[in-house]
Amino acid sequence: MRKILIIGAGRSASSLIKYLLDKSEAENLFVTIGDLSEELARKKTNNHKNSRAIAFDVFNEEDRKREIQNADLVISMLPAHMHIEVAKDCVAFKKHMVTASYISDEMQALDEEAKANNIVLMNEIGLDPGIDHMSAMKIMDEIREQGGKIKLFESFCGGLVAPESDDNLWNYKFTWNPRNVVLAGQGGAAKFIQEGTYKYIPYHKLFRRTEFLDVEGFGRFEAYANRDSLKYREVYGLEDAKTCYRGTIRRVGYSKAWDVFVQLGMTDDTYIIDDSEHMSYRQFVNLFLPYHPTDSVDIKLRLQLKIDQDDIIWDKIVELDILNNEKIVGLKNATPAQILEKILSDKWTLQPEDKDMIVMYHKIGYKINGEKKQIDSTMVCIGDDQTYTAMAKTVGLPVAIAAVKILNGDITSPGVQLPTSKEVYQPILKELEEYGVIFNEYDVPYLGYKNL
Amino acid sequence: MRKILIIGAGRSASSLIKYLLDKSEAENLFVTIGDLSEELARKKTNNHKNSRAIAFDVFNEEDRKREIQNADLVISMLPAHMHIEVAKDCVAFKKHMVTASYISDEMQALDEEAKANNIVLMNEIGLDPGIDHMSAMKIMDEIREQGGKIKLFESFCGGLVAPESDDNLWNYKFTWNPRNVVLAGQGGAAKFIQEGTYKYIPYHKLFRRTEFLDVEGFGRFEAYANRDSLKYREVYGLEDAKTCYRGTIRRVGYSKAWDVFVQLGMTDDTYIIDDSEHMSYRQFVNLFLPYHPTDSVDIKLRLQLKIDQDDIIWDKIVELDILNNEKIVGLKNATPAQILEKILSDKWTLQPEDKDMIVMYHKIGYKINGEKKQIDSTMVCIGDDQTYTAMAKTVGLPVAIAAVKILNGDITSPGVQLPTSKEVYQPILKELEEYGVIFNEYDVPYLGYKNL
Repeated sequence: MRKILIIGAGRSASSLIKYLLDKSEAENLFVTIGDLSEELARKKTNNHKNSRAIAFDVFNEEDRKREIQNADLVISMLPAHMHIEVAKDCVAFKKHMVTASYISDEMQALDEEAKANNIVLMNEIGLDPGIDHMSAMKIMDEIREQGGKIKLFESFCGGLVAPESDDNLWNYKFTWNPRNVVLAGQGGAAKFIQEGTYKYIPYHKLFRRTEFLDVEGFGRFEAYANRDSLKYREVYGLEDAKTCYRGTIRRVGYSKAWDVFVQLGMTDDTYIIDDSEHMSYRQFVNLFLPYHPTDSVDIKLRLQLKIDQDDIIWDKIVELDILNNEKIVGLKNATPAQILEKILSDKWTLQPEDKDMIVMYHKIGYKINGEKKQIDSTMVCIGDDQTYTAMAKTVGLPVAIAAVKILNGDITSPGVQLPTSKEVYQPILKELEEYGVIFNEYDVPYLGYKNL
Repeated sequence: MRKILIIGAGRSASSLIKYLLDKSEAENLFVTIGDLSEELARKKTNNHKNSRAIAFDVFNEEDRKREIQNADLVISMLPAHMHIEVAKDCVAFKKHMVTASYISDEMQALDEEAKANNIVLMNEIGLDPGIDHMSAMKIMDEIREQGGKIKLFESFCGGLVAPESDDNLWNYKFTWNPRNVVLAGQGGAAKFIQEGTYKYIPYHKLFRRTEFLDVEGFGRFEAYANRDSLKYREVYGLEDAKTCYRGTIRRVGYSKAWDVFVQLGMTDDTYIIDDSEHMSYRQFVNLFLPYHPTDSVDIKLRLQLKIDQDDIIWDKIVELDILNNEKIVGLKNATPAQILEKILSDKWTLQPEDKDMIVMYHKIGYKINGEKKQIDSTMVCIGDDQTYTAMAKTVGLPVAIAAVKILNGDITSPGVQLPTSKEVYQPILKELEEYGVIFNEYDVPYLGYKNL
C-alpha cells in the first residue's frame, strides 16, 4: 500500500481525509493522520480500516522524522509557517509533499535539492491559492494557444454564507478565521495596476472602492482590493497586461457597513484598550466618539458617520447589538480588533444547520486578431454541512487529488511547484467537477478602456 | 573657570550657545562646543575668547570620555537616542548633565547612581517638553496651594511661521523637521481622557477632530490631538482630572486641508512607490485616485474628496503645484511620505528673511471652595532671524539657564530630573521673560461639562 501522512486534522482537512479514505481501496492507500490532538485525528479517520490516527507534534524532531521516513507522500495542513521543517525532512528522505499554502522563501530555497532528489513539493493547491491559479491558467493558456494576448486580469474570491443560511442584514457569517476577517486589508496600501497605471488604496478607503460582480443564479456581489495584486503578474506571465487586480468577494452592502468600523478605528490591532475587560459593548463604541454632554452614543455615532436613522447601515449596526450597555466585553488587555471580533462572533457564528459558500470570479480580457474580447469565469460551491463545508471541499479536494496523482506518476515535475502547468491543472479541474466545483465561462464585452 | 561641554551645534543650539557665551564673563564660564562638523562648531563660537570648538563624535569612546572628564557640566543637544552613552559617562565621572529630550527608560535607570554621586541629570527642559512642563506646573502648584483641585488639563504647542512672514494659503512653513510634520499623528490612535472617559482617535480622523484656540493679539488657531496625552497624568499628579488632553497647534484651516493628503494615503511611510524617481508630481497624485477613461486628475481629485471648485482647500492644493506634470519627483525608491515632503518643501521652506513663531496654550480647570474655575495661559514667541529662531530660543534658553543654575548651586536635587519642581521652574520662567518668553494668564469660565 502507498502510505500518505497527513499532518493537521483541523477544519480544512475533513474533505481531504474523506476523499483519500474513500479512494483507499481502489488506489491502494494507507492514510496516517497526525494531529496535536490524537482524539481529533481519530475522529476524522471514522475508524476506516486503511487509516491510523496518531498524536503528532511537528516540533518533536524524532517523531516527525520517523513518520515522514515511513510515508510515501506527506500532506501538511499546518499553518503556513510550520511547513518548513516538514519540507526539509521530505527532501532529505526523498518523499513527495503537498501543501495548500503560499510558497515561502524558505520553501523556494529547497527547489534545487528537491529536483536533484526527483521529488515533488507541490504548494498553493488549495482554494486561494490553488483553484484560482488552476482555473485562471486554464483560460489564459487556451487564449494564448489561439494566439491571443492577455490584456486584463481580474480575479476575486470570497468565503460567504450560503443563500439558504443567509439570515442577517450583513449577508455574512464567519466561515473561516474571524480574526483575518477583522484585520482584512491592514498592514499597507492595496496595490494593483489599472489601464497601465499603478494604483494604491490606503486602508481607510479600501471598503469604499468596491467593484460589483453578477453571478448567474446567485445575484450581485461586490469586491474590495487585496493587498498585493502585482505578484501574480510574474507567476501568470502578465507583464504586458494593462490591468491586474485581485479582490475579496462580499455581498453588496457589506463593505459600506464595514467601513463604519474602519472609520471609527475599531479594527485597529496595534494597541490595547485600557480596562477592556469590564467595558460594555456600548462603552467600547463610545471610546471612538467625541465627548458630548447630552447626546447619546447612538446619536453621536449617527452624526459622526452621517448615517440617517432610516439608512440600512444603521439597522446593520443595531442588529449586532453593539450599542448594548449590558453586554460586557470580558477580554483582558484586548485590542479594538479583538473586541470587535468578540462582538461580531455573537452574531456571525455559523449555526449547526448553516452552510457556507465559496464564490470565485475571473475576468480575463485579451486581444486576438485585432479584436478585444473577454471571458468571465465563475464558480460557486456550497457546503454539505458543518464538516464538509465549501471551504473544506475547495481547500482539501485539490490537495487530495494532487496527492494521488503524484503517487500515480501523473504529476511528475520535480522541485518546488505550484499548479500553473497544464499537466497539473487539467486533470485536477476535471476531477473537481465531480465534486461540484464547476466553472462557468462567459464571453462578455471587453471591460478595459484603452486602445490596446 | 567652570567648564561646560556642549555636544551638538545644530539649529537648536544657537540661542543656547549665545546665552552661555554672553554670560561667560559674569558667570566665569568656559564653553567647549563639539560637533561632528568642527566648522559648524567654530561658527557657533563666534570666535569668543571663552570658547573652544572641537570635532566630536559621540561614538568615539576615548574622545568622549576625555572631554566629559574635563568638563564640569555637559549639555547634550544630540538626537534623543544618542544621549545615553554621554549620560553614563557623566554619572561615572560625576558631571552634571542637561538635555531637552524626554527621559528614556535607559536614562531613568541611571537615577539611583546619579543620586549616589550627587549629580543632576536634568532632562525635558527645552520647549515641548520643557517650557510646557514649567509653565503648566507653575499654575497648577498655585491652584493647589490655594486648596484647589485640578479637574481639567489641556495643553497645546505648535511651531509656525510668524505673522509677518505668513504668505501662503496654509499659513504654515516648515520651521523644524519636515519629516516629523508629514508623519505627525501616525503609529497608533491618539489617546486622551475627556470628562472621565477614555477617547481614541484613529489617524485617518485625527485632522477632523480639532479644537479652536484664540490667542490675544494673534487671532484664532486650531489644534489636533497628540499621540499619548495620558502619560502626563502621573507626571503632573492629574490622576483625578476628568480631562487630560495635549495637542499640536496650527492656523485654522490647515488640518482640514492636510486631511486631503491623509485621505489620499500620501502620508504613508510604510511602502515604496514603484519607479518614484521619474514620476511627475501629477502622476504621484494619480496613484491614489481611481482610474477614469476621460476625467482629468484635477476632476478626479475633487470628485473623490468632494472639494468644490471654489473651496479654499482647492486653492491650497493648487498653490502647492502638486498637479504639475512637468515637475519630477527625482527620489529613488521613495515612500509616499518622502515624496510629499519633497513637494511641500518646494513651497514651505523658510526664506532667508522669514521668521518663525512658537505658540503655547494651557487650559487648566479646577474646583475651589465649591466653585468651578479655569485659568488659560498663552505664550507666543517670535524668532529674531533664521539663526536665533523662536524654536532655537525656546528650546535652548531653558537648557542654558538650567546649566548655569546647576553650576551655581541654585538647582541641586540630584538624580534623573525633569523641571516640574518649583526650585527649577520658578527661576527659569522668571529669567525667560527677559528673553521674550512670557505667559499671559486669563481667568475664564470653566470649560468642562460634568458636575465635579
